[in-house]
Amino acid sequence: MLQNDWQIIEAGGITSALGFQAAGVACKIKKQNKDLALIYSEVPALAAGVFTTNKVKAAPVLISQKHLVEGTIQGIVVNSGNANACTGQKGLEDAQKMTQLAAEALKLKGEQVLVSSTGVIGFPLPMEKVAEGIKAAAQELTPAGGLAAAEAIMTTDTFPKQLAVSLEIGGKKVTIGGIAKGSGMIHPNMATMLGFVTTDAAIAKEDLYTMLKTAIDQSFNMITVDGDTSTNDMVVILANGLADNPTSKLGTPEGEKFQAALNFLTACLAKDVVKDGEGATKIVEIKVENALTQEDAQKAAMAVATSSLVKTAIFGEDANWGRIICAVGYSGAEINPEKIDISLASAAGAEMMAQDGQGLAFDEAKAKRILEEKEITILIDLQIGTEKAVAWTCDFSYDYVKINASYRS
Amino acid sequence: MLQNDWQIIEAGGITSALGFQAAGVACKIKKQNKDLALIYSEVPALAAGVFTTNKVKAAPVLISQKHLVEGTIQGIVVNSGNANACTGQKGLEDAQKMTQLAAEALKLKGEQVLVSSTGVIGFPLPMEKVAEGIKAAAQELTPAGGLAAAEAIMTTDTFPKQLAVSLEIGGKKVTIGGIAKGSGMIHPNMATMLGFVTTDAAIAKEDLYTMLKTAIDQSFNMITVDGDTSTNDMVVILANGLADNPTSKLGTPEGEKFQAALNFLTACLAKDVVKDGEGATKIVEIKVENALTQEDAQKAAMAVATSSLVKTAIFGEDANWGRIICAVGYSGAEINPEKIDISLASAAGAEMMAQDGQGLAFDEAKAKRILEEKEITILIDLQIGTEKAVAWTCDFSYDYVKINASYRS
Repeated sequence: MLQNDWQIIEAGGITSALGFQAAGVACKIKKQNKDLALIYSEVPALAAGVFTTNKVKAAPVLISQKHLVEGTIQGIVVNSGNANACTGQKGLEDAQKMTQLAAEALKLKGEQVLVSSTGVIGFPLPMEKVAEGIKAAAQELTPAGGLAAAEAIMTTDTFPKQLAVSLEIGGKKVTIGGIAKGSGMIHPNMATMLGFVTTDAAIAKEDLYTMLKTAIDQSFNMITVDGDTSTNDMVVILANGLADNPTSKLGTPEGEKFQAALNFLTACLAKDVVKDGEGATKIVEIKVENALTQEDAQKAAMAVATSSLVKTAIFGEDANWGRIICAVGYSGAEINPEKIDISLASAAGAEMMAQDGQGLAFDEAKAKRILEEKEITILIDLQIGTEKAVAWTCDFSYDYVKINASYRS
Repeated sequence: MLQNDWQIIEAGGITSALGFQAAGVACKIKKQNKDLALIYSEVPALAAGVFTTNKVKAAPVLISQKHLVEGTIQGIVVNSGNANACTGQKGLEDAQKMTQLAAEALKLKGEQVLVSSTGVIGFPLPMEKVAEGIKAAAQELTPAGGLAAAEAIMTTDTFPKQLAVSLEIGGKKVTIGGIAKGSGMIHPNMATMLGFVTTDAAIAKEDLYTMLKTAIDQSFNMITVDGDTSTNDMVVILANGLADNPTSKLGTPEGEKFQAALNFLTACLAKDVVKDGEGATKIVEIKVENALTQEDAQKAAMAVATSSLVKTAIFGEDANWGRIICAVGYSGAEINPEKIDISLASAAGAEMMAQDGQGLAFDEAKAKRILEEKEITILIDLQIGTEKAVAWTCDFSYDYVKINASYRS
């Protein structure tokens, strides 16, 4: 074991936990590449999900929310290339039909299947292709299919995002695995941040949602590429209990151990999403410390992470702390403008640029060297409390504009 | 008289109203060009101001807020090239000193002068240069100095922004004039949207602030270039009463007439700011109609105006309505996703892209022609109420990134 209570599983992903299978196939919803994934638990699993807060919700979001309320889940069907959003009654019927088709292929009931889509907004799903894809994917389901599923949910992502960790709970080995795709709205009419997590841990039914939400609030909810919340965002966890551990509850040491590993897993996947942000050349970690409340720390960190001006300055490797303090100022976080310290750090060193809200005569050459690195940390000390938060973003490059100015594909 | 109750004054500006003088000089705060402006009313004027909501407020903002409370105003001193923000106690002393120096030159008391700054954050003002500039500007004050003042407040602005209108109130000719500069944070460490309005109208003291706030809420508060609220934003109005009209009050026909003209003037100046947004190639008007409340309409319009994805799509001339409805969805405005119509319009025609929340099989070629124009309107009909709002933004181009990635100047 490492210093932490969990271990990363080499090449692990959504099928690393016991009893999970997956597949990813190409069924021509997209012009090329895999575009349909199935995730399957051999036994019914407890499930919880966190969905987009956008008031315009895609049909699969509405159907999955319904199925989560109705019972335990055994399958997830996901397509990329078409978001099935702004598609009206037909869209709802199509999303429902996807769960039925997957249920038939997997010998389940429709309510035991969740559905998720990502891609172009406003066009009906090509249901014949989808039906063929579901059939093909069901036949290819395998405990080795995690990577194929990670690939099939990609849109403009340039690499698949997957991770798995194992830990011991009550003397049993427990595994958590996950896959994710592209953050924010990341292509002309392409949408969506999707994340799927599986675990063989036995988790107290009443705690699973809280555990997922806690993990997301420190990971997927703390990243931004362009600040736009899509119509299709969804992160779901399935817990099938096959690890046979004593049921984990929040507020117990074993429950907290599971939470910490889940936090780590979702944070890694979220950082991968930022690293793969459109046009990104750098990943930026924004650490806010000594805030009055956790919410204040998160607000300040996310305002800096979302600022186009901070992001273009990072792209330009310009130690422009005035934009950082400005973003903190309009973040809505409780602050004392005369108490804010701002530093930069990377593998090339660290440099404080402002102290107690005022600029220092800092070493510009050193700051430039720090910013030349690919991974940069902005440290903001608010000096009025003890709470902290971390957000992640990428820089804002010419290529971001180029990718997003081009026509819908 | 036009259909409206006011007339535009050819080449009019901040000195078009009776009794106002101005000057703009170069005193080397910036490497080149004018960088210090004085605005002077020959008699004490009622004054009101609206200031940045950023919790990090520049020193001149704090000093001007104090002077506005203390009495009537006769002078405004403005410098560009240095924001005097994040400069601590020294910054406050410098801002105070600027008002004293201007007051001495104009034979006023310090409290009768407002001060405003825009430019680099975090560096102390070069007070010797500022002092020389104030002296020189005071000597150059003239009723023909409006354009020079408009030029002296520019930072990365590519053209000066000024306008004046005249109207009749109670049988007297009344004039309103104004100047403005750059929106949002518009340069590496350069900040600030500034606006200054002068009028010779006699306005009821208790109504002046409300009139200004009403005008700003429909103009400067409805524009965005990059979504960042600076530390120095400020819009101020001086009303010196020299037109000798019966005092205008809100809720009277004459008061409303003045309000309408003031709204027009500030909207024109605000649109000029957007037109001159960094890297802008197009100006986009976002009209939201039939919202439940005025606030909902404003929220929806501003979310669309601020979306990097909408702005890059406009730059790419891509009729990407999915991004528009997505921004409406996360705006916080009350909506019914199944009631939203979205159209595009410009000099090249109009085309509806989505109706009742669903995509139409619209004419892509025509949409492209509409988007090839320089001035574009996005019309969003929420169909759930009767309230409306208009926001303005510019597109998001390669040059935006280029300008904002470069080093602080």
